[in-house]
Amino acid sequence: MEGKTKRKIFNDPVYGFVEVPYGILYDLIEHPYFQRLRRIRQLGLTDIVYPGAIHTRFSHAIGALHLMTQAIEVLTNKGVSILPQEAEGVKIAILLHDIGHGPISHALEHKIVNVHHESLSHLFMEALNKEFEGRLNLAIRIFNNEYPKKFLHQLVSGQLDMDRMDYLNRDSFFTGVSEGVIGYHRIIKMLTVIDNQLVVEEKGIYSIEKFLIARRLMYWQAYLHKTVLAAEQMLIRTIDRARFLVAKGVQIGGSERILGFLNKKLDVSDFREDNLLLTEYAKLDDTDIWYSLKEWENCSDAILSFLAGSLVRRNLFKSVLSSEPPSAATLKSLKNRLILQYPSIENEIDDLIITGKETNSAYSTSKAEIQIALKSGEVLPMSETIDTGVTAKIITKYYLCYPKNKKYIYTSKETPKERDQK
Amino acid sequence: MEGKTKRKIFNDPVYGFVEVPYGILYDLIEHPYFQRLRRIRQLGLTDIVYPGAIHTRFSHAIGALHLMTQAIEVLTNKGVSILPQEAEGVKIAILLHDIGHGPISHALEHKIVNVHHESLSHLFMEALNKEFEGRLNLAIRIFNNEYPKKFLHQLVSGQLDMDRMDYLNRDSFFTGVSEGVIGYHRIIKMLTVIDNQLVVEEKGIYSIEKFLIARRLMYWQAYLHKTVLAAEQMLIRTIDRARFLVAKGVQIGGSERILGFLNKKLDVSDFREDNLLLTEYAKLDDTDIWYSLKEWENCSDAILSFLAGSLVRRNLFKSVLSSEPPSAATLKSLKNRLILQYPSIENEIDDLIITGKETNSAYSTSKAEIQIALKSGEVLPMSETIDTGVTAKIITKYYLCYPKNKKYIYTSKETPKERDQK
Amino acid sequence: MEGKTKRKIFNDPVYGFVEVPYGILYDLIEHPYFQRLRRIRQLGLTDIVYPGAIHTRFSHAIGALHLMTQAIEVLTNKGVSILPQEAEGVKIAILLHDIGHGPISHALEHKIVNVHHESLSHLFMEALNKEFEGRLNLAIRIFNNEYPKKFLHQLVSGQLDMDRMDYLNRDSFFTGVSEGVIGYHRIIKMLTVIDNQLVVEEKGIYSIEKFLIARRLMYWQAYLHKTVLAAEQMLIRTIDRARFLVAKGVQIGGSERILGFLNKKLDVSDFREDNLLLTEYAKLDDTDIWYSLKEWENCSDAILSFLAGSLVRRNLFKSVLSSEPPSAATLKSLKNRLILQYPSIENEIDDLIITGKETNSAYSTSKAEIQIALKSGEVLPMSETIDTGVTAKIITKYYLCYPKNKKYIYTSKETPKERDQK
Amino acid sequence: MEGKTKRKIFNDPVYGFVEVPYGILYDLIEHPYFQRLRRIRQLGLTDIVYPGAIHTRFSHAIGALHLMTQAIEVLTNKGVSILPQEAEGVKIAILLHDIGHGPISHALEHKIVNVHHESLSHLFMEALNKEFEGRLNLAIRIFNNEYPKKFLHQLVSGQLDMDRMDYLNRDSFFTGVSEGVIGYHRIIKMLTVIDNQLVVEEKGIYSIEKFLIARRLMYWQAYLHKTVLAAEQMLIRTIDRARFLVAKGVQIGGSERILGFLNKKLDVSDFREDNLLLTEYAKLDDTDIWYSLKEWENCSDAILSFLAGSLVRRNLFKSVLSSEPPSAATLKSLKNRLILQYPSIENEIDDLIITGKETNSAYSTSKAEIQIALKSGEVLPMSETIDTGVTAKIITKYYLCYPKNKKYIYTSKETPKERDQK
Repeated sequence: MEGKTKRKIFNDPVYGFVEVPYGILYDLIEHPYFQRLRRIRQLGLTDIVYPGAIHTRFSHAIGALHLMTQAIEVLTNKGVSILPQEAEGVKIAILLHDIGHGPISHALEHKIVNVHHESLSHLFMEALNKEFEGRLNLAIRIFNNEYPKKFLHQLVSGQLDMDRMDYLNRDSFFTGVSEGVIGYHRIIKMLTVIDNQLVVEEKGIYSIEKFLIARRLMYWQAYLHKTVLAAEQMLIRTIDRARFLVAKGVQIGGSERILGFLNKKLDVSDFREDNLLLTEYAKLDDTDIWYSLKEWENCSDAILSFLAGSLVRRNLFKSVLSSEPPSAATLKSLKNRLILQYPSIENEIDDLIITGKETNSAYSTSKAEIQIALKSGEVLPMSETIDTGVTAKIITKYYLCYPKNKKYIYTSKETPKERDQK
Repeated sequence: MEGKTKRKIFNDPVYGFVEVPYGILYDLIEHPYFQRLRRIRQLGLTDIVYPGAIHTRFSHAIGALHLMTQAIEVLTNKGVSILPQEAEGVKIAILLHDIGHGPISHALEHKIVNVHHESLSHLFMEALNKEFEGRLNLAIRIFNNEYPKKFLHQLVSGQLDMDRMDYLNRDSFFTGVSEGVIGYHRIIKMLTVIDNQLVVEEKGIYSIEKFLIARRLMYWQAYLHKTVLAAEQMLIRTIDRARFLVAKGVQIGGSERILGFLNKKLDVSDFREDNLLLTEYAKLDDTDIWYSLKEWENCSDAILSFLAGSLVRRNLFKSVLSSEPPSAATLKSLKNRLILQYPSIENEIDDLIITGKETNSAYSTSKAEIQIALKSGEVLPMSETIDTGVTAKIITKYYLCYPKNKKYIYTSKETPKERDQK
Repeated sequence: MEGKTKRKIFNDPVYGFVEVPYGILYDLIEHPYFQRLRRIRQLGLTDIVYPGAIHTRFSHAIGALHLMTQAIEVLTNKGVSILPQEAEGVKIAILLHDIGHGPISHALEHKIVNVHHESLSHLFMEALNKEFEGRLNLAIRIFNNEYPKKFLHQLVSGQLDMDRMDYLNRDSFFTGVSEGVIGYHRIIKMLTVIDNQLVVEEKGIYSIEKFLIARRLMYWQAYLHKTVLAAEQMLIRTIDRARFLVAKGVQIGGSERILGFLNKKLDVSDFREDNLLLTEYAKLDDTDIWYSLKEWENCSDAILSFLAGSLVRRNLFKSVLSSEPPSAATLKSLKNRLILQYPSIENEIDDLIITGKETNSAYSTSKAEIQIALKSGEVLPMSETIDTGVTAKIITKYYLCYPKNKKYIYTSKETPKERDQK
Repeated sequence: MEGKTKRKIFNDPVYGFVEVPYGILYDLIEHPYFQRLRRIRQLGLTDIVYPGAIHTRFSHAIGALHLMTQAIEVLTNKGVSILPQEAEGVKIAILLHDIGHGPISHALEHKIVNVHHESLSHLFMEALNKEFEGRLNLAIRIFNNEYPKKFLHQLVSGQLDMDRMDYLNRDSFFTGVSEGVIGYHRIIKMLTVIDNQLVVEEKGIYSIEKFLIARRLMYWQAYLHKTVLAAEQMLIRTIDRARFLVAKGVQIGGSERILGFLNKKLDVSDFREDNLLLTEYAKLDDTDIWYSLKEWENCSDAILSFLAGSLVRRNLFKSVLSSEPPSAATLKSLKNRLILQYPSIENEIDDLIITGKETNSAYSTSKAEIQIALKSGEVLPMSETIDTGVTAKIITKYYLCYPKNKKYIYTSKETPKERDQK
């Protein structure tokens, strides 16, 4: 019965029991770098629209590890050769694939450190590899796609990787957007390996089709939801403004851990040269942002106070989507209107009119395509099988966000009551 | 089609669509006092054991409102007279029943302001009633059980209230403790009113039985989980220590919003006399606690730093449950052992040995009992029906929590690596 | 409390509680014509592939009634005018929409009576209308699309009717083909009526898209599953053979209720002229077919015995799908092979080689299209909205079914053991 | 990739994918003896109350096999020694544990052959063992509890066997009685073996508690539902009557396969002596009963016609439960009333007044108790652990069933219309 104590069981609302063997995987989870992910939400500000979407990057990473464990078992049962150290490596790789994430969202981490989170994940993995005396070597090779068994990398990062499989499923579960639910169990059961490539058995083709549609629907209903877009753009402008004020030497308050980074211009080479930078970065999480927003709500700078307070009080910008970008005339008339409403910040009004576009396709045939293993033995890209009903139609939407028609700019002297009475 | 725009739809992972009519209910949700609940987790530190349990008091309040809407509809369809203003009142009462909650947990709000959260909810309701010019009058009477139709209060606070119905269901959902799932839908369908009391139709008796068992299991598996108990006790000691240091004039850093309250000794009358106190209190949420813990991790006081850092890094106290309280000999030998491990804090070591007890019964017959409406017309307390298989057995467990055997006290000068190498 | 006894509650695995008010709806359910549907499976022989798919037309009709009740409530809440008698009428129409179904499948009822089941449903509704003294008048007008409020008919029979909504959901549930699950709840919430037409609010467009995909996937995975096709074709040939033998005066045994119809050539006018025919037809259900197959397994006619025994013992024909019809050469060589295997039935071998084709499109723009009510007030066909990612690609598959390579024809003299030893 | 074709996948609404390896398990499933189970409903007449409960013994057996596969894997991963042939044996034993079931229900098979279905299962296993040339030897020893590793038998038949685990789960799923849902996944994960006994790890104790309660609730809500009891008693009286008429030489029609057995008085030794008896028995399934009932509805014997017609038309007896048996006075006055209503069958009226009792306890401490493996290493019966909240309270209910107040006895000459007009 010795085996009894050899596994840690996590309860997961999505999968039920998730078992993690004691050993390096469990030790990595216990590490403060990984525990930090408990304080970073997987979907940033999305809970502003979907109140349930408050799940963390921690639970996503554990979930992706769970699916990887299943995938390894399925492939091994089909006769695919995966050595124990390879299984450990690919599990470590998926567990740590997002460890470099900064607070809130991709967009924000770019604003704070200007380094892609995948590079940061890599830096964290290197740092952990030193602590764990080289035991992450194989995981890092798989993560970087430098390992000969290419399908292992594809399980970590590819059209059907366990990252995507978990996040679509989990994000759908917590947002309550049931259109995004995927049959991950069936897809994983249908995976196999041919010629070193991850492929899907023919009878899984309908599950794949539904997976692609579910992904498309999650993009438009959650990831690119217009109100979430607005909130994220507001946060980006907030950080921009804070950086601008810090550069001018204004004391704005907020988390010192954030302010420290707003003082600097960094790229990935800085992290490579200065180990302490990563240690500092590892202290950041969502609470630093929210704490700062609550401080900045009362800041003397009208713009910063307006943006931060609007986020804290969920007084979000109006957001409009359309199939064409807004015309110059529209923008001009909007600007004139906003100047009348907010005369005190006339010069900065351009910063509060936010435009951009988002693009999504159900299924791209240009990138490495999902490969289907037919019963006949042939392997075909999905778009060439007779069953495919999914098109590669690309949809683009243009957004325009701007403050709603409220008559005041928040100031720190007023109570909420006084504000609302204005 | 005018009705089309008259309802706001929330997506909820537990119930799917939740509809809230535009009007006072929606305006209350939009109020900053209510939006604050987005930043307070329903289960405090429970996510330290159940990573999915990060749902907020915001979503619980919306969920309870949803169930109240269903209950009102069921009762009305059965011919129970509920006037439109009563329906609105009872919905407002359930929406705001927890609005007074402070950060993290019940225990903590007691430590910060020493006022029960129900009294605070009442204060918030009074404040909102002023803003909304008396439109919460009826809701407040129901909340305080001052309204003649007693069953309305029972729907807000009673053996089968919509608060409990939602939290058991929601907590079970997010912890992943499936033993706690209740058939809320069936229970609500079986509610009716006889002699001004909320009762359950006979054919709902099995659903009630399962509800009581589910509740019992949630207590032992989630609410009173030994590791969660340990974490909460650690947090309480942390606040105690911070208050002690603040009183001594030590600069410990952390959120000013928390520090402001640590300076004061308050009771409910203070809040009644000074309106600003509630405004200050309304600025508190979980992010203030977490921000402070992260600051305190680096504080010069060894005890505060140790406690805060242990929470941030999830280096939790060991927790032991048993059916007897620990003996004096056990406690003495434990103290000696801890002094050897932590010689630098010998004088404070008693603060780190935490004992207490927790008690739970599946079903109490002493309090107002659930009433069953038999098909014969008779109304009986549940314990007197022939079908009951549930006992009133009370179970008590004693806990003992203390630091695990780690050889170091955190200091702010070390990197995590250095700490772990000690 | 009088309302308490006014509704009958059905437990439904798909929807939980389904409530039916006592009154004409409940009386129709209690009628033997409707109770008969308990003994007719919704998906005919599909359980031969999906063992869970044994749900009945009875539970489908109750489920469709449940969804209709919800749809009526949603529309009424949006201000659509639906009078009580119209609500009753449209509920009766959906409850009885399939009451004319014969045993097993559409294909089979054609073989037995050569009348479409919708015409038979109409005949049953007329018969019931007499018994219920005209209380089905309005239901019949709605069913026949003769009622001015066209959207009522569309709820019974249209692109988004409650029949389809329930069967996709229910069939997906019981087959376990999770790709077919639809968000019926969301779709119904998004229904509204504009210009007397049933339309979908814009924000429901993603639910519709998923609905269309789910439908497509159910077709290929369940309704047109190649093995189910084979079994149905086998059953059709069995009935053909039985009819042939009956015409020759051979005593083949089996249910007299089936044999009675195999003796006749009927069309809908016969039913109109002879009331007893409908009474006879109302005695047929799946048990008559299965009883007959078990009798015919031991019949002296080699073909009938072979076909019936193969179905009873689940020794199904091999079934091949392809994107082209089989070539003449393929068919010829197959025939030669079968003659060698089954020399005793050389002359009938053509009857055992079955070819045909099946066609399905995700979404047809040629028929009445789903209409989307944009927030702008405009109503557009779904294919013209910017969001649509669904194509109208039509997929055709050709099937070829024939006996597997087994060396014997069943005879009634052998035990199963002896057969298998051949 | 050779593994790809080595498993058959069944879709199961309860568990999703169920995989069965090709080999003896799959061959047994394909055998006509096992395919017969497709035509026997797991819950007999229960669908008369719960329309969804039409799942078959076939799908139950496949489900139990699925859980057994999981249990074997869990135990093996914990270091319990289970040889490949033992795993195969215990899987065969669970797959075939119910293969001896006759049509409809336990009660009925007793009426038809007067042999317990477990003995019949054993007979079928012996017969199959001959066909499969001894490959079921080990399975039969496990089934009969003659194998030294006692825990293997306990997995097939015991307090926590895979039979019960599947049927509670499956019956709950299909009836829609959600109170009966059990956390089978958690229970199986918590199984282990100590001293050759199947035991449950301490942390699974709450899952066990919920399992016991769920079981109790399923008994009262489904298995012993008063209307189901009435229907089963009606069917038993129908068969009694049919047997009585057959003995008198009356030609009553119906399935010859049933009539053959009504002519005989058999016990298990008859089956042992005459192999053909089992072959005959293997031809029986639910369709023989339903076909016969539909024939007997039109029989000239008033009692048989009345009983059979009442079942076919779901005109069920009234059923009353109480905590005391009905008094002699009650029975006498009931009889007098029925004689007035049904004067033509005055002499047989006693046969239509049915009394009896049903007993159930949540948890019996008298039989072999569930054993809990404490973390301390100790093994305790569940009733002696500190956590137990479940009592052994035994509940007994007495039933009384009799015809409802309808004014006619069915005769074959009337149309349903004419009957209802009486």
